[in-house]
Amino acid sequence: MSKSDFSQSLLASSGKPQTAADQIPIIARFAVSDRAKETLNLVEKFVEEECIPADTVFHSQIGEGQKRWTTYPPVIDHLKARARKLGLWNLFLPKNHFKEGAGFSNLEYGLMAEWLGKSRTASEATNCAAPDTGNMEVLAKYGNDAQKKEWLAPLLEGKIRSAFLMTEPDVASSDATNITLTMKRQGNEYILNGTKWWSSGAGDPRCKVYIVMGKSDPSNNDSYKQQSVILVAAGTPGVTVQRVLSVYGYDDAPHGHAQIKFENVRVPASNIVLGEGRGFEIIQGRLGPGRIHHAMRSIGAAERALEWMIARVNDTRKKTFGKPLSEHGVLLEWIAKSRLEIDAARLIVLNAAIKIDESNAKGALKEIAEAKVMVPQMALMVIDRAVQAYGGAGVCQDTPLANMWAQIRTLRIADGPDEVHLQQMGKNENKRHRDIVEKLKVQKEKADHLLNEHGVQQKSKL
Amino acid sequence: MSKSDFSQSLLASSGKPQTAADQIPIIARFAVSDRAKETLNLVEKFVEEECIPADTVFHSQIGEGQKRWTTYPPVIDHLKARARKLGLWNLFLPKNHFKEGAGFSNLEYGLMAEWLGKSRTASEATNCAAPDTGNMEVLAKYGNDAQKKEWLAPLLEGKIRSAFLMTEPDVASSDATNITLTMKRQGNEYILNGTKWWSSGAGDPRCKVYIVMGKSDPSNNDSYKQQSVILVAAGTPGVTVQRVLSVYGYDDAPHGHAQIKFENVRVPASNIVLGEGRGFEIIQGRLGPGRIHHAMRSIGAAERALEWMIARVNDTRKKTFGKPLSEHGVLLEWIAKSRLEIDAARLIVLNAAIKIDESNAKGALKEIAEAKVMVPQMALMVIDRAVQAYGGAGVCQDTPLANMWAQIRTLRIADGPDEVHLQQMGKNENKRHRDIVEKLKVQKEKADHLLNEHGVQQKSKL
Amino acid sequence: MSKSDFSQSLLASSGKPQTAADQIPIIARFAVSDRAKETLNLVEKFVEEECIPADTVFHSQIGEGQKRWTTYPPVIDHLKARARKLGLWNLFLPKNHFKEGAGFSNLEYGLMAEWLGKSRTASEATNCAAPDTGNMEVLAKYGNDAQKKEWLAPLLEGKIRSAFLMTEPDVASSDATNITLTMKRQGNEYILNGTKWWSSGAGDPRCKVYIVMGKSDPSNNDSYKQQSVILVAAGTPGVTVQRVLSVYGYDDAPHGHAQIKFENVRVPASNIVLGEGRGFEIIQGRLGPGRIHHAMRSIGAAERALEWMIARVNDTRKKTFGKPLSEHGVLLEWIAKSRLEIDAARLIVLNAAIKIDESNAKGALKEIAEAKVMVPQMALMVIDRAVQAYGGAGVCQDTPLANMWAQIRTLRIADGPDEVHLQQMGKNENKRHRDIVEKLKVQKEKADHLLNEHGVQQKSKL
Amino acid sequence: MSKSDFSQSLLASSGKPQTAADQIPIIARFAVSDRAKETLNLVEKFVEEECIPADTVFHSQIGEGQKRWTTYPPVIDHLKARARKLGLWNLFLPKNHFKEGAGFSNLEYGLMAEWLGKSRTASEATNCAAPDTGNMEVLAKYGNDAQKKEWLAPLLEGKIRSAFLMTEPDVASSDATNITLTMKRQGNEYILNGTKWWSSGAGDPRCKVYIVMGKSDPSNNDSYKQQSVILVAAGTPGVTVQRVLSVYGYDDAPHGHAQIKFENVRVPASNIVLGEGRGFEIIQGRLGPGRIHHAMRSIGAAERALEWMIARVNDTRKKTFGKPLSEHGVLLEWIAKSRLEIDAARLIVLNAAIKIDESNAKGALKEIAEAKVMVPQMALMVIDRAVQAYGGAGVCQDTPLANMWAQIRTLRIADGPDEVHLQQMGKNENKRHRDIVEKLKVQKEKADHLLNEHGVQQKSKL
Repeated sequence: MSKSDFSQSLLASSGKPQTAADQIPIIARFAVSDRAKETLNLVEKFVEEECIPADTVFHSQIGEGQKRWTTYPPVIDHLKARARKLGLWNLFLPKNHFKEGAGFSNLEYGLMAEWLGKSRTASEATNCAAPDTGNMEVLAKYGNDAQKKEWLAPLLEGKIRSAFLMTEPDVASSDATNITLTMKRQGNEYILNGTKWWSSGAGDPRCKVYIVMGKSDPSNNDSYKQQSVILVAAGTPGVTVQRVLSVYGYDDAPHGHAQIKFENVRVPASNIVLGEGRGFEIIQGRLGPGRIHHAMRSIGAAERALEWMIARVNDTRKKTFGKPLSEHGVLLEWIAKSRLEIDAARLIVLNAAIKIDESNAKGALKEIAEAKVMVPQMALMVIDRAVQAYGGAGVCQDTPLANMWAQIRTLRIADGPDEVHLQQMGKNENKRHRDIVEKLKVQKEKADHLLNEHGVQQKSKL
Repeated sequence: MSKSDFSQSLLASSGKPQTAADQIPIIARFAVSDRAKETLNLVEKFVEEECIPADTVFHSQIGEGQKRWTTYPPVIDHLKARARKLGLWNLFLPKNHFKEGAGFSNLEYGLMAEWLGKSRTASEATNCAAPDTGNMEVLAKYGNDAQKKEWLAPLLEGKIRSAFLMTEPDVASSDATNITLTMKRQGNEYILNGTKWWSSGAGDPRCKVYIVMGKSDPSNNDSYKQQSVILVAAGTPGVTVQRVLSVYGYDDAPHGHAQIKFENVRVPASNIVLGEGRGFEIIQGRLGPGRIHHAMRSIGAAERALEWMIARVNDTRKKTFGKPLSEHGVLLEWIAKSRLEIDAARLIVLNAAIKIDESNAKGALKEIAEAKVMVPQMALMVIDRAVQAYGGAGVCQDTPLANMWAQIRTLRIADGPDEVHLQQMGKNENKRHRDIVEKLKVQKEKADHLLNEHGVQQKSKL
Repeated sequence: MSKSDFSQSLLASSGKPQTAADQIPIIARFAVSDRAKETLNLVEKFVEEECIPADTVFHSQIGEGQKRWTTYPPVIDHLKARARKLGLWNLFLPKNHFKEGAGFSNLEYGLMAEWLGKSRTASEATNCAAPDTGNMEVLAKYGNDAQKKEWLAPLLEGKIRSAFLMTEPDVASSDATNITLTMKRQGNEYILNGTKWWSSGAGDPRCKVYIVMGKSDPSNNDSYKQQSVILVAAGTPGVTVQRVLSVYGYDDAPHGHAQIKFENVRVPASNIVLGEGRGFEIIQGRLGPGRIHHAMRSIGAAERALEWMIARVNDTRKKTFGKPLSEHGVLLEWIAKSRLEIDAARLIVLNAAIKIDESNAKGALKEIAEAKVMVPQMALMVIDRAVQAYGGAGVCQDTPLANMWAQIRTLRIADGPDEVHLQQMGKNENKRHRDIVEKLKVQKEKADHLLNEHGVQQKSKL
Repeated sequence: MSKSDFSQSLLASSGKPQTAADQIPIIARFAVSDRAKETLNLVEKFVEEECIPADTVFHSQIGEGQKRWTTYPPVIDHLKARARKLGLWNLFLPKNHFKEGAGFSNLEYGLMAEWLGKSRTASEATNCAAPDTGNMEVLAKYGNDAQKKEWLAPLLEGKIRSAFLMTEPDVASSDATNITLTMKRQGNEYILNGTKWWSSGAGDPRCKVYIVMGKSDPSNNDSYKQQSVILVAAGTPGVTVQRVLSVYGYDDAPHGHAQIKFENVRVPASNIVLGEGRGFEIIQGRLGPGRIHHAMRSIGAAERALEWMIARVNDTRKKTFGKPLSEHGVLLEWIAKSRLEIDAARLIVLNAAIKIDESNAKGALKEIAEAKVMVPQMALMVIDRAVQAYGGAGVCQDTPLANMWAQIRTLRIADGPDEVHLQQMGKNENKRHRDIVEKLKVQKEKADHLLNEHGVQQKSKL
């Protein structure tokens, strides 16, 4: 690549800063409506100009001691009001399945979610924060009218928050058939006993409902019909939030990742979702798009880390070997690789998003799994490079980097560890083996035939 | 990821084998015409059913000793006749720039080139082989009528072949300004002196023309105006093919990578392309799409390696630790990672192809550089895994793997080593630094203002 | 490798558990005295049976809120008493330089430090914790009698703790010449102004002395004579601990990594160490062995992570794909690679330790730098694998893994980032270039001569 | 790391070049006799001054066409004569097991083998080339007097060469129980039928004996008693060398990796080694030290690649971005990492060598496996960096790099692929699981007890 190649590109890039819409990879641009492009630009502006500055306030307003879990930072309510006013609300609900949302496709929301992922507050501000998003999808898709009225409506309004209780300590939680929390029908109630953990969001005082996966029919021959999903109001007698789990040293207050004990918790049978024994069906519908949302936000986090790395490298107070950091080839290579890795990962996510739009989450299993595995690994790498470039400032509270790293590190584990997904992807890919073996066999036969036809002896036999 | 998730996906994938068109990533599918899809399926069929079987014949027909360079495998002529009959000819010339080709976009040809890359003979059979493709583009774009008639016409007909002579031993060839071959005007002729190497294709007896980059005006103040490109007929007095360079033991006969000496070689001045001092301009136009072609073919090579790996893993004669290889988790993970890495790399290439289609090679510099760097590294990794899975058969002539690896290894070097591209990509990305530093500064000021407004003290000061 | 190979090894390893001394790599065993072997076994026993169980108590006794920094866990005093009784005290002071220590070589202490690194409390319990160790070395080596009496004696007794204040925010701290804290002589005092951060241990209420590096002669032409080291009593007027820095969310209380402001702090001139302008000399002597200590402890941390990984993999409650984790090839490969990587890193550290023993830290610069760069990267990889194997339990407080990872992550930054060391190692290695270029030239000439002598033409010219 | 640190080291390294003995890692130096050190320096001199220059002659003397396999380069006989004269002969036979050798330990030979590995001819010149070394060990250890007289004596004299025939196509050759070549006793003869491949050295016209592993008792219940080893004279009727396998594109003439067919080959029963059914025993004894030899030579190859890389980087004709390559940080980092990785790998090999010296190959299984897996991967990485630094010259015949890479690539496969060794190492390491699980359980109980004793509640429960 020659110098003048790049003088060209320099000229190209030295114009005025590109908008978020300008930055959509060209391969995906055709599938984005003009309305989505305008909204995307608005999201960018809201995140960069309002949410990121508010992140500092949010962080500083988190309580001390027990108050970490009984209060929440007031600044978030200002941001939510502002987002609603801007029309940036419930962006995540895909238009082809839900009428309640803002009317965007998964691809279009994906592009927006990338920007949301740059800020700690932006997702919640726009009512697009996990786990509420997945929970709202579950309620919208599978809830009955009463359930929707009681829980979905206030969730869509951003008035309450929710948690999804599936994972349990002491079992391999990546496989839902391992679940042990029991749900016994007794009259008009179910009695729940068991323990859940990594119940994210259950630390928040605004969390009013738990969507709980349990075993209602543990002896059913079909191991995928043993589970049910039931709605449990926070504060129901017998429910104890035992402790909050930390992620590296972060407790993620007020959100929190809770361990919750159920001791003879009585829940109205009418709170069952979709029907007894249909828990598996629900869980499946829930996981797909959620994985994409996490991936999308992680792309944004990686972009922010790259921005911080670039800022560091151009901090003229920092010199080593007598040169500013921006002239060190190793750091320039980190920047280049980060750019390339982010761009490749983004295409993988956007391709999955379009696949969901064109079929649905089940039809996009391969594409979703690819995004689920690839993106967090990429983002961790990019963020870790930025940490290293910052040195002491990178690992502490003076940059957003260490916290972003820790948050994204959990994504390699949540909803199944990378290794389980890779095994399954390997098995699926390997299903092609019969076709492949047959094809190679036929090719070899044809080659032998052709050799004969051309009167040639195959080479490399002595 | 649960079992039943994948039973679904199993059902989905157990239907009849997908065509090449079915396999286009959904994100790119919208931009592919129906005619291109039909042609793509035809390419797949031609490659899998005719070219790959013919590869064995091709390999076996290569001569021994000096005959490696004075003859060529006759089977290629059968394949070329067949390809023309099928309409698979000059697929590479993009429709928006050239009328002489088959009328496809870079994206569409990219999808086809992937299949061509699975076979040693397919690219040449369809008249889409490097370096002729790039050379034809140069002649079509920059050649005058006489030059076109003499060289472009027979190249488009597949009657002759060509070489591109730019790289020189003993200088850093990634920068064209370092070129030392001299071109001195003397009357109606240029006198050429110097040495070129890595002149790929110059070993072939059918190679009739060299496109030579030299310095016609070495003292020009503008270091990008010192170079010119001139057409030299093979066999011109003073031209000596000194030796053929091997690539990891392969001499790549009859193609060959030649070292060629020019001693007082007299070339008609009318053979200059575009005009004296315009060599740099030509070189730039040539490199972009060529990089994409290599990348596209490498994707195909990686796909073929993955097919061979899957075949190996399902070879029931191979067992370790009492289990067939297909039940070994490490190998399944290799398959999964290979699938994922190929898919990500393909999206990077297709995105670059669309970018070229929508603007041109100059407008797609970033995207082309990303493909140039990412794809060969990915393909080498995938192929090396397959080699390792095959053991002894992987490194020797019993599989196509070792040879594919060696070919693709050169792509990390050709047209500039990865590291030069990464440095340049890093510098370009770093051009954002002023905007970023300013943005972070403004965000900090806003945060301070907000803290004040909310009456909060920033946390983490004691 | 055949089955019966390993039946053999099975028999070998199924005997009674090896002691710590048995586990010394054979290559280093010859250099370890019998007394050191006995002490090593005692250290193992003390760490595994007393310190690791006490870690939980230590963690639970750390205060809440402001008390995190005004109290310290009482259990540590029990452990210290116990260690002294066992003779496990001041093990780190190398016998060939200091009479105050336990009389071991760097190699011998290195083997012990590995075990200390498995526990949060063991280093402090044996009075071998950073930064006191390096500070005691400085005082013992460079302090005058009064300084020794006032500070070294209580440090050696474990009665007080200390901090080393070198790094500053906003400059590239890897180069000591960048230091900005000023020390101005005024009568019998120095006036200190400036800010230090990453002053580890300064959070502890027992920390009574700061060893401070400042610029006493900023205009000295020799940039290595501008610095001095002075002892500052904690609580000296003008000294403010501004805040504590977190490491991936951990505040590391009561130890703490402090940011400390010096405003017109008056320090007796007699507190200067070694003499004005000799700060650089002191810093150099201090860093070498300290890097080795960190590396040694990190080896122990990696071993502990591997133990936890093995425990997890054999937890029969955890199954995926119907198999216990211990039958999953990917996890077995992680275990194998971890074993290999730990073993290689340990040899690098032990080789550096012997090199220091045989010469001194200056003579072992290459070996120390190798350990400094290699070990933390290795340990982070091993720990991260263990985190991944544990899933949710790995990232939270239920295992020691996440905290160990965060602690060790700082070692890639502290005392100069990896990249600075690698650049310097590269430059040093590159100093061989003249000899190498000359050797290759001579070899080529001899080859040409030999070709001639044997009447052979060099091959691969056509 | 500060500048003046390294000025020191600069002074140290700018003295006169170190001898080979000076370069022995200090950790291993104590175990090397003075005689070995002197011999080591002699080996260095012989390799650098005589063998490496002779490599070019050797390469150029290899025949063309069929003559590649019927002649061998005469220069090798000059080198052999020279080596014998210098006393550099049969260095490999370890003194504690064999009286026939030069009387060095495995460690001492290991250090020498590193230098031998830098040259193509040095191992053969000193009669230390594979597979003869392992074959001589087998004959010396297990052969009877007649066998020794007929085959060992001329091998020790360097008069004939030999091959070891174990691996077979179409089975997983890493497990010797899979072997299918049949050996049927008939009177005083065994009748052999089957096919072997990767019979390295069988291409050489001087190869006079094959050591063949076959199944003499396929129905034996003990699957490790089914195999026997028998000596077959080259040229025995029924033996056909079918073809030579290439390694990447290299045929490795005249050595060659042969595929050999046995059709009713009659071999005297007296040629059986050690006794019928004892093949497994023999194979085991053979593999251990051989793996170490390969590893040792690979260290030398990596050192040579690093030397070439340094030479390249200091080639002042090569500039990119206006700077000589030696000022590019990325390349300096490659050099530094290579230095570090080579040094770590060397310690792993030397530790294994000492372990063999102190016990034997069986007692050093873990250490040998570590070297077997680690060293080739390291060497491939280092060589590949050098290839990349050279660009076109790196992949072709103008440097020794591509060929070295291809040779070492086979070591990741030969004698069992890395993955099989890693699985076995993982399983072995995992045998500690009972002890570990018990230890962690006891530690937890003690912690609970201590918490109680100290009256503390465990933290991080709400």
